[in-house]
Amino acid sequence: MATPLKVGLAGLGTVGASVVRLIDQQRAALTLSCGRPIEIVAATARSRAKNRGIELKRFRWVDDPVALARADDIDVFVELMGGAGDPAKAAVEAALACGKSVVTANKALLAKHGVKLAALAERKHVALNFEAAVAAGIPIVKTLREGLVGNRLERIYGILNGTCNYILTRMEQEGLSFADCLADAQRLGYAEADPTFDIEGHDTAQKLSILASLAFGTRVDPGSIYVEGISSIAPEDLSWAAELGYRVKLLGVAVKTAKGIEQRVHPTMVPKDTAIAQVMGVTNAVTVDADAVHAITLVGPGAGGMATASAVVADIGDIARGVRTAPFGRASDKLAWSRKAPMQRHEGGYYIRLLARDRPGSAATIARRLAQQGISIESIVQRHAGTQGGADPGKAAPVPVILITYATTEDAVRRALAAVRRDRVISGAPQVIRIEKN
Amino acid sequence: MATPLKVGLAGLGTVGASVVRLIDQQRAALTLSCGRPIEIVAATARSRAKNRGIELKRFRWVDDPVALARADDIDVFVELMGGAGDPAKAAVEAALACGKSVVTANKALLAKHGVKLAALAERKHVALNFEAAVAAGIPIVKTLREGLVGNRLERIYGILNGTCNYILTRMEQEGLSFADCLADAQRLGYAEADPTFDIEGHDTAQKLSILASLAFGTRVDPGSIYVEGISSIAPEDLSWAAELGYRVKLLGVAVKTAKGIEQRVHPTMVPKDTAIAQVMGVTNAVTVDADAVHAITLVGPGAGGMATASAVVADIGDIARGVRTAPFGRASDKLAWSRKAPMQRHEGGYYIRLLARDRPGSAATIARRLAQQGISIESIVQRHAGTQGGADPGKAAPVPVILITYATTEDAVRRALAAVRRDRVISGAPQVIRIEKN
Repeated sequence: MATPLKVGLAGLGTVGASVVRLIDQQRAALTLSCGRPIEIVAATARSRAKNRGIELKRFRWVDDPVALARADDIDVFVELMGGAGDPAKAAVEAALACGKSVVTANKALLAKHGVKLAALAERKHVALNFEAAVAAGIPIVKTLREGLVGNRLERIYGILNGTCNYILTRMEQEGLSFADCLADAQRLGYAEADPTFDIEGHDTAQKLSILASLAFGTRVDPGSIYVEGISSIAPEDLSWAAELGYRVKLLGVAVKTAKGIEQRVHPTMVPKDTAIAQVMGVTNAVTVDADAVHAITLVGPGAGGMATASAVVADIGDIARGVRTAPFGRASDKLAWSRKAPMQRHEGGYYIRLLARDRPGSAATIARRLAQQGISIESIVQRHAGTQGGADPGKAAPVPVILITYATTEDAVRRALAAVRRDRVISGAPQVIRIEKN
Repeated sequence: MATPLKVGLAGLGTVGASVVRLIDQQRAALTLSCGRPIEIVAATARSRAKNRGIELKRFRWVDDPVALARADDIDVFVELMGGAGDPAKAAVEAALACGKSVVTANKALLAKHGVKLAALAERKHVALNFEAAVAAGIPIVKTLREGLVGNRLERIYGILNGTCNYILTRMEQEGLSFADCLADAQRLGYAEADPTFDIEGHDTAQKLSILASLAFGTRVDPGSIYVEGISSIAPEDLSWAAELGYRVKLLGVAVKTAKGIEQRVHPTMVPKDTAIAQVMGVTNAVTVDADAVHAITLVGPGAGGMATASAVVADIGDIARGVRTAPFGRASDKLAWSRKAPMQRHEGGYYIRLLARDRPGSAATIARRLAQQGISIESIVQRHAGTQGGADPGKAAPVPVILITYATTEDAVRRALAAVRRDRVISGAPQVIRIEKN
């Protein structure tokens, strides 16, 4: 029998407990696949006493994650504690410094310290694997790192947050408000009590920063991502999108442009017939545009204990087999400092929803302001009160005007809408949703 | 500079020429990713003179593929000649026997001799990689071999033949006949002059046999696959499917059942809202059902020179990095002899389209025959002449009857329909399409 790969497991939440279950259940198959058994020998977590439905007595218990990371009897340190700071950071650093490979699902840690940790792993000739950090059960990290090396990547975009996709799906399918869907998501455990991190796009941004680094060979740079969440999306945006042949998804997009790498997270209109538009509920999906494969899309569970554990176990399996690839696809000192393409210079189509005051000249003023910025209109829909319901017939209610522009720049759109607001021909703030073409 | 990985390339058709282009174009990125350069040093093909738009003078030319496979100056033999027999087989065997790793896109060779070749590769401690053999640019082999090792796989199914999916898509979207769409596909280069291998499901079956082996740890066994093509599909089947909430796809399906492993290729009704149903045109897709990830779907190009070359280059990249996994995911002597689940015992829902003779008692007879076999009907649609058009009003034309059954067995359906035919209450042969639920 070949020497077992000995694992130290830090963190026994839903994912950690699922890793224990999968390694138990797949013991024989893992041994066949990796050529050696995988054995958890020691573990740490905040509470030893908590009932997790798994037998912990067989593992050596260590109170301090850093001590576990340094323990002589482990080959691999599996970090499932989370958080960009200590103890996760200190423990991962300690493990790498001692020449132990690390598997982590910690996107926050990687987004913030990924390059430094990768450099340490490379210096020590050990692996730093993190398939579970992005889109859980979808093997997108392996696909980018290994599967697409023959390609020059042009764009990567995806639905990376199940909470947001669940909310947008229900809003679209049932015509409910954002607030109602969020409340439901919280009741069902799909959203945290404090949902800000998810719904304002920050979770997506952390994941995107990791994908962008793998896709373009650049240093992880979450600070250069433009981030906008879904809380301003109204049910009427989704019904207008449907009418115009689109769906609204919260996408993380990283794209190579002539101005540098553009990274952005925002609600996005995607053509209804694209693979990404079909992804409903808590499911995640990532599309990669590349010169040789043209486009590939991976769809699967983006969260959940077992799905995340599946990725963790695959990462451990690679280490058991002796596979070691550079964490971000190339040596960390070869990762480029990416030139950031500023959001103002983003180019694309736009959906703009305005409430025009119902008086002569409003539409003309709006059209003039757009034209002054060189914005061409692909389609325009204007519906008078009654068609969208709820208006007081005794009063000249504002009229919804929906504009779809041809490709223009973010800057032009912002300037045009600022002028329209100054003209006082609209009620409230304009709604703007960027369009992503396939 | 690290030692280059030296490649001998056999076959310079569309894929081979694309491999040369990708390795040229990605030279720097490949070196960064793999830690060493990848260099094609020698090549062979049927014709040296043919203009392929690539510069061949820089490679040593070898006339005999077997001699190239044995050449001292190569580390990896890349086989892109195709065909289950020689010279491909002899050359791959020669390379492995000399201790050289092999990359191949040759599904026919793998379906027929895969286990034997894997055993030889393992004995020589070299890699035998074949990502390009199934679904070209989609990294499904790597996903099964490495990405899902934490999972127990339950089912794998997919659209593995772009020609068939192109034909079915056009039939559905434009209401055209099978023959018209096939002719178009041939004109556009999506179908061969002799399309039998594609449209009768044999291409899909070869690919499925490889996927099933990887998914279930069993020996490749194309002979145990039930195969049925798409040539009998009529436009009205597609419109009925649409009306009932389905789409028709030619699927390869391998599923673990209580009776053994069921492998089958046939036109299949899939619910319209599944990821696989959304896949249109020449695109391929594979869905894997597994206990931990539940379901993941990979969508991408299933053919084409560059997409196939992308997979070949990724396989070469793994070898350059020193990665070697068992070709079918575990040592070939640990691959199980799978118990074949016979098609007669297949369980599932069925779509049945009959032309009932328009006389009293026909429907009752059909219903009785189904009931006698214990088949329950989920829905039934019967349309009298005129609703489907084309009938001669002067004559009692046969009436289309569409039945959707609850889960039953293939055997029961065959018996019931044989009895109905003996009863002479229908015109022509019944159309039967199996339903695959997600």
